[in-house]
Amino acid sequence: MSAQRVSLVTLGVAEVPRSRAFYEAWGWRVRQENDDIVFFQCNGLVLALFRADLLADDQWRTREQLGVGGMTLAQNYPSVEDVDERYRAAVSAGATVLKPPEATNWGGYSGYVADPDGHVWEIAHNPYWDVSDDGSVVIPDSLP
Amino acid sequence: MSAQRVSLVTLGVAEVPRSRAFYEAWGWRVRQENDDIVFFQCNGLVLALFRADLLADDQWRTREQLGVGGMTLAQNYPSVEDVDERYRAAVSAGATVLKPPEATNWGGYSGYVADPDGHVWEIAHNPYWDVSDDGSVVIPDSLP
Repeated sequence: MSAQRVSLVTLGVAEVPRSRAFYEAWGWRVRQENDDIVFFQCNGLVLALFRADLLADDQWRTREQLGVGGMTLAQNYPSVEDVDERYRAAVSAGATVLKPPEATNWGGYSGYVADPDGHVWEIAHNPYWDVSDDGSVVIPDSLP
Repeated sequence: MSAQRVSLVTLGVAEVPRSRAFYEAWGWRVRQENDDIVFFQCNGLVLALFRADLLADDQWRTREQLGVGGMTLAQNYPSVEDVDERYRAAVSAGATVLKPPEATNWGGYSGYVADPDGHVWEIAHNPYWDVSDDGSVVIPDSLP
């Protein structure tokens, strides 16, 4: 069975209600929840917001060992206009701007924001990748 | 268009060849590449290994601002035996053990390892979630 899979992405957060409010303001809808964790159903995978101290415990590490920003999540959209719209929605929801969307040196268009705990999201249009309505992407057979 | 999507996960890495060798030893196969980045096709999303200094530049941040461990990726498998097998494969590939697989308090079975840059992977069996052959998961309508 192939190890080449991402079934779940878990973000360690200081306060689940605060983070949940941010994602809901950004348009996300919770699928399951309890006091310590909430789950969102995405395109073939799940994203969770989990109390960072419990995440650290679960990994047998200290809270101080959990950094943010070295791993980036991206949302792809079919057009530049979609990126602008979804970027504005993220900022309206309270995201911290790292870089407003702009044309990239690889022929795409993207910007970066951070959530309340500093987790980084890229909001991007890549003209060389097919993106489904649910955000799934497929790398094509050949590079441009 | 819904913002509830993860199209791409990018890991900032010190040395792309070193990280690539680890993931290939773990059974992953590169779909596209250049000197600074490699792309793996996963279940409806893409995972990239990208030079951490370039990832920091791309976010208008410093390399020092990029931590690891606050965001965890998970692989789900249909059985406890699958978890044990894939955990051993990760360790054989050079992963750092954080926690060997064990029964969890929520009724699952999971362990944690870290890749060469400290990015955390959980390898898990969740008896309450359906997992497809490619690792896609769907949250059921009701909790147990």
